[in-house]
Amino acid sequence: MAIQLVSKSRCFNGEVRRYSHLSSSLQCEMKFHVFVPDNYDSKENLACLWFLSGLTCTDENFITKAGAIKSVSQGGIMLVCPDTSPRGTNIEGEKDSWDHGQGAGFYVDATVEKWANNYNMYTYVTEELYNIINIEFKTKKHSIFGHSMGGHGALVMALRNPTKYQSVSAFAPICNPTQVPWGKKNLGGYLGQDNLEAWNQYDATVLANKYTGVDKINILVDQGDADEFLERELKPSALKEACEANPLLSLTLRMQPGYNHNYYFIQTFVDDHINFHLNHLK
Amino acid sequence: MAIQLVSKSRCFNGEVRRYSHLSSSLQCEMKFHVFVPDNYDSKENLACLWFLSGLTCTDENFITKAGAIKSVSQGGIMLVCPDTSPRGTNIEGEKDSWDHGQGAGFYVDATVEKWANNYNMYTYVTEELYNIINIEFKTKKHSIFGHSMGGHGALVMALRNPTKYQSVSAFAPICNPTQVPWGKKNLGGYLGQDNLEAWNQYDATVLANKYTGVDKINILVDQGDADEFLERELKPSALKEACEANPLLSLTLRMQPGYNHNYYFIQTFVDDHINFHLNHLK
Repeated sequence: MAIQLVSKSRCFNGEVRRYSHLSSSLQCEMKFHVFVPDNYDSKENLACLWFLSGLTCTDENFITKAGAIKSVSQGGIMLVCPDTSPRGTNIEGEKDSWDHGQGAGFYVDATVEKWANNYNMYTYVTEELYNIINIEFKTKKHSIFGHSMGGHGALVMALRNPTKYQSVSAFAPICNPTQVPWGKKNLGGYLGQDNLEAWNQYDATVLANKYTGVDKINILVDQGDADEFLERELKPSALKEACEANPLLSLTLRMQPGYNHNYYFIQTFVDDHINFHLNHLK
Repeated sequence: MAIQLVSKSRCFNGEVRRYSHLSSSLQCEMKFHVFVPDNYDSKENLACLWFLSGLTCTDENFITKAGAIKSVSQGGIMLVCPDTSPRGTNIEGEKDSWDHGQGAGFYVDATVEKWANNYNMYTYVTEELYNIINIEFKTKKHSIFGHSMGGHGALVMALRNPTKYQSVSAFAPICNPTQVPWGKKNLGGYLGQDNLEAWNQYDATVLANKYTGVDKINILVDQGDADEFLERELKPSALKEACEANPLLSLTLRMQPGYNHNYYFIQTFVDDHINFHLNHLK
C-alpha cells in the first residue's frame, strides 16, 4: 500500500512528516506522523521508536505537545505516532462516547461484528504499519511507548511480541484493563462482554504474569501520584506485583509526586523514556 | 484586580498555571498561562520572560507546543503567556476574519471607535498584566519574545520600553508592518486608514530607525528561509538595515535553512532564545 505525504516541516535537523494511506486492516484512510533525522535513508540500521496516544487523541498530540523531538533527533532515530482508532468508518454510535469508539480503539482487534471490519488497531500497529515503516524507511530495530490507553497498548504489544520490540515504556498506562471501567467498557465492547479469554490477551498485568519469552523485558513506567485516574483506571501496583513475580520481567515504576495525567507530565519525563529506549536500540 | 486560578499542572519541577481575570484595559475577562518554578515566592528577584503569540493563537499555544518549559525551569525564571486579543466582547464582525479582530489584536491600542474600548493589547501587556505579574509574583526583571504577530509585538514593546524589558527576541516576526498586508489591515483597522503617525508607533523597523534610548538593545531574531510568509509579510531585511544604521541596536538575525512558520520551527530554536534572555535577566 502506498503512503502519501500530507505535510512536512523541518524540525531539529530532521523532518516532521504526516502521511496518509489506505489501511487494509482498518478498511479506511489513516494518517500518521513521523520524525525522520537527516540522512536517515543512508543509515544501515535506522532504529524506530513508536508512541501510542491515549483516549481522544490523534496522531498529532504527541508530536506537537511532548517536546520529544530534540532527544529523538539527537539519538539519530525515527519516531512514529499512529492515530488511536479508525477514522471515517461511520459505524453507528462510533462518536457517542469519548472513551469508546472513535479516538478510543484501545489497540485491540475487535471480534464483535459491528466493529470487526475496522477496529483492528492491534494488527494495524504491530503488523500493517510496522511493515510499511520497515519498507519505506528501511528500519530494523523498534521500541514502543505510550500514554494511558496508549501505555496499555505499548505494554501489551511488547509483551506479546518480544522479538519485535527492543524495549517498552509508558506514562500512566492502564495496567490491568480487565479490572477497571475503561478496560471493561472497551474490551467488552470490542471483544464481547463474556469473552474473558480474549480480554486477557489485552491485559498487561495478565500477560506479565504469564510471560515466558526467551528474552528478558525491561519496562519503564512513570506515574504521577496526583493523576485523577490513578486509583480507578490505571492500577500500576497490579503490574508491579506481576513483574516482581516474574524473573523474565524487570519493571522500573517511578511514582512522580504532584504530577497528573496530561502532557505537562509527559514532557517532563519524556527525555528519560527516549534515553531508556536509545540504550536498547543501540 | 484579583486573578483567579483556573487550572494547574506540575511540570519540570514547577507549575503551569492558567489564570483568569477581569481586564480593565480590555473591558473583558482574559485568561493567561504562567510557568512558575518551585519556591518562586521565596526568591528575591524572580525574573520573568514573556511570550507573545501569533495570529489565531490563544494563551495556550506556546505553553503546550513550544517545548520551552524545561529550559525556563532550569533557568529558575517565570514564563508568562498572554492571549492575543480581547475575548467575548461581541464587537460586530470581530470573528469574520482570521487575521483581524479576535485572535489578532496586533498588540496595539485601538483608536478607531468600534475597537477602542477593548482592543488595547499594547497597554494590557506592557502595563496592566505587567503590573499584575509584578504584584502577584514579586517579579523584578522582565524580558520578552514572540512569534510572527507576537514577534512584532515583542519588538515594538521592547523598543518603546527599554527600561521595562532587559532583552527581546522573536521567531519570524512581522518586522515592518506599515509596509505589508497583515500590518496595513490591522494598523488601518485599529488605528484608522490614514493615521500613519500612529502606525509608525507600532512598526519595529520605524522604531529601530528612530531609537535613541540610553541603553543599547540586543535583539535576536530567527527566521526560517522556507517560511511561506517571509517575502510578503515578515521583511526581516528591513529591520536588519535599520539596526545596522543605529549603533544603539545590535541585531542577530539568523536565517534558518528549510524551516517554516510553525511551532516545529519554534521548538527547534526556543532553547537558544531562552538562554539569550537568561543572560540578560541575570
